[in-house]
Amino acid sequence: MSRVVKLAVIPGDGIGPEVIAEAEKVLDAAVSGSDVRFEPTRFSLGAGRFLETGDTLTDADLQAISEHDAILLGAVGGVPGDPRLKDANIERGLLLKLRFALDHYVNLRPSKLYPGVPGPLAEPGDIDFVVVREGTEGPYVGNGGSIRTGTPHEIANETSVNTAFGVERVVRYAFDLAERRRKKVTLVHKTNVLVHAGGIYQRIVDAVAAEHPEVAVDYLHVDAATIFLVTNPGRFDVIVTDNLFGDILTDLAGAVTGGIGLAASGNINPDGAFPSMFEPVHGSAPDIAGQQKADPTAAILSVSLLLDHLGLRDEAQRVTIAVEEDIAARGSAPRTTTEIGDAIAARLSA
Amino acid sequence: MSRVVKLAVIPGDGIGPEVIAEAEKVLDAAVSGSDVRFEPTRFSLGAGRFLETGDTLTDADLQAISEHDAILLGAVGGVPGDPRLKDANIERGLLLKLRFALDHYVNLRPSKLYPGVPGPLAEPGDIDFVVVREGTEGPYVGNGGSIRTGTPHEIANETSVNTAFGVERVVRYAFDLAERRRKKVTLVHKTNVLVHAGGIYQRIVDAVAAEHPEVAVDYLHVDAATIFLVTNPGRFDVIVTDNLFGDILTDLAGAVTGGIGLAASGNINPDGAFPSMFEPVHGSAPDIAGQQKADPTAAILSVSLLLDHLGLRDEAQRVTIAVEEDIAARGSAPRTTTEIGDAIAARLSA
Ligand SMILES: CC(C)[C@H](C(=O)O)[C@@H](O)C(=O)O
Ligand SMILES: CC(C)[C@H](C(=O)O)[C@@H](O)C(=O)O
Repeated sequence: MSRVVKLAVIPGDGIGPEVIAEAEKVLDAAVSGSDVRFEPTRFSLGAGRFLETGDTLTDADLQAISEHDAILLGAVGGVPGDPRLKDANIERGLLLKLRFALDHYVNLRPSKLYPGVPGPLAEPGDIDFVVVREGTEGPYVGNGGSIRTGTPHEIANETSVNTAFGVERVVRYAFDLAERRRKKVTLVHKTNVLVHAGGIYQRIVDAVAAEHPEVAVDYLHVDAATIFLVTNPGRFDVIVTDNLFGDILTDLAGAVTGGIGLAASGNINPDGAFPSMFEPVHGSAPDIAGQQKADPTAAILSVSLLLDHLGLRDEAQRVTIAVEEDIAARGSAPRTTTEIGDAIAARLSA
Repeated sequence: MSRVVKLAVIPGDGIGPEVIAEAEKVLDAAVSGSDVRFEPTRFSLGAGRFLETGDTLTDADLQAISEHDAILLGAVGGVPGDPRLKDANIERGLLLKLRFALDHYVNLRPSKLYPGVPGPLAEPGDIDFVVVREGTEGPYVGNGGSIRTGTPHEIANETSVNTAFGVERVVRYAFDLAERRRKKVTLVHKTNVLVHAGGIYQRIVDAVAAEHPEVAVDYLHVDAATIFLVTNPGRFDVIVTDNLFGDILTDLAGAVTGGIGLAASGNINPDGAFPSMFEPVHGSAPDIAGQQKADPTAAILSVSLLLDHLGLRDEAQRVTIAVEEDIAARGSAPRTTTEIGDAIAARLSA
């Protein structure tokens, strides 16, 4: 009995198509010989599509994508400063629209320092933690506006919206994950200033913690958390935080673990009501696009998260191990995007 | 003709009194022999005062403080988790109340890696930048609330408020500062998500930049800015950003330049309508209070900012140089808080 997984593939802009080609190669290698088969549908979305047709994400696109079992996304975004994209906001209109419409309430971002990877810290220690970033609320809801815009009397507001429903489900996910890891959850927020938005997180973490007596829980203000990320990143296991703080912490975490060329992410709807979406944390890097300079590792590690999410635990594990082995074997000689993808795929077929 | 400066001194909690004792010692040494004299009034404020009297900052306190020429603050905040402080929020009721009531719209935070200071980065390079953090708006305005609090139907909101008036004055300050430095301003925000709050900053930076053709201007999303702070902090000269992003970036900046034991700050009202307030970025660290373990350097560097703000440029410069010399001469043997203060004061009297 074979299982067919309908996969929506959004290569996107810049280096997106290059890294996605390698990610798909590894995905196929991971399931080759098994009874699982990926059936990809390609979606042309991003700055390129916008410039061609004026569309960012149509209702028809969204409908078609949502009929898939999972989504693999490269990177979207045009050349910074391109005047034709001035009013586009591909990030909000495409990336965030997908996350919100498909109820990706868990934005899962593991950070691990792989042996052999050079990073900016002098004494990094063992780094292996996961940020569980809320994905559908907070300051990302788009609940803002301005009046007298562009005049000396302008007022521009932006409202962070947080609900018990939204916070509880992501906090529960974080505790369940911690139960399968080193059993520690750190809530990061700014409760001393954002009294209400922080308060709802603190109260719900306290309540859920009571159901998980084996899990150690602590709290850090976001400013202090950035200090620990560079002075003692080994103290973290699972971090749970809001959409904006999660965005900031995961870029910093990517940097301290050797660069966002390695940082993978999953935009997950754990309920399975909508397809989850897997993407490298890095952007489209148009300056190096088409030159085979991009590192596809982050996209390939996103494939591992995708496999894990689909319940293909062994396959996910094998991809991660192949990546770790490849990283350990990396010399200083640069390899092309394809060479890296080929090397990792070869380890899976071996 | 002698000048008397009325100084409000708020030693505060924890290590606050210890570091302030050294800061005052250095302040006096810096002006000894000149025609300037500091006349201190001590204010008992913080967790200690709250526990004694139930007051955080009374109208009478605020009135008395505002009649001074400048404020020197140590650190405020009780022992974390102290049940008697559960509903206190000394941060909002005291520290932020002072910043807002005294219209401290520039929160000035220099970051410099002094030769000889060990930091967490393997290859830090030359680090010397200043964060100009907006101090009276943004997500810090306290414009939030929750309904059905503590129930499964809770909604907790928090609104960032930004005005052209408030943004323009801090952006102008940043450009004026850049003119006297390496002539580069970096705006940090999250314009791709916080479209309105980010838009007002971007528009005003563009407008003010047009009046400063010699100043190079760039823009970074806050997540990318944290990456550069650990991979290439030397790229920054003056960063201008909102209240919350400034809070996050300056703690991280403190960490990469050797710890917040060295990070000074000024809460400045450049118009002079209200006294400005100078304080180390670090907190009250109750765990090491009264043990002579705290490093008073951040408080002493805050004194240098205070002197500079009062127009005592030479004295400010001399304090900075004395600190730099002391840091360069530091061995690995720990010194007490008083020993460090004495050593720096002695260099000024020499
Ligand atoms: C592109 C941007 C909207 C996005 C975010 O802020 O979430 C990105 O920074 C990320 O972390 O995936
Ligand atoms: C104590 C807290 C309210 C304060 C802030 O967030 O501004 C502190 O972190 C700081 O940076 O001075």
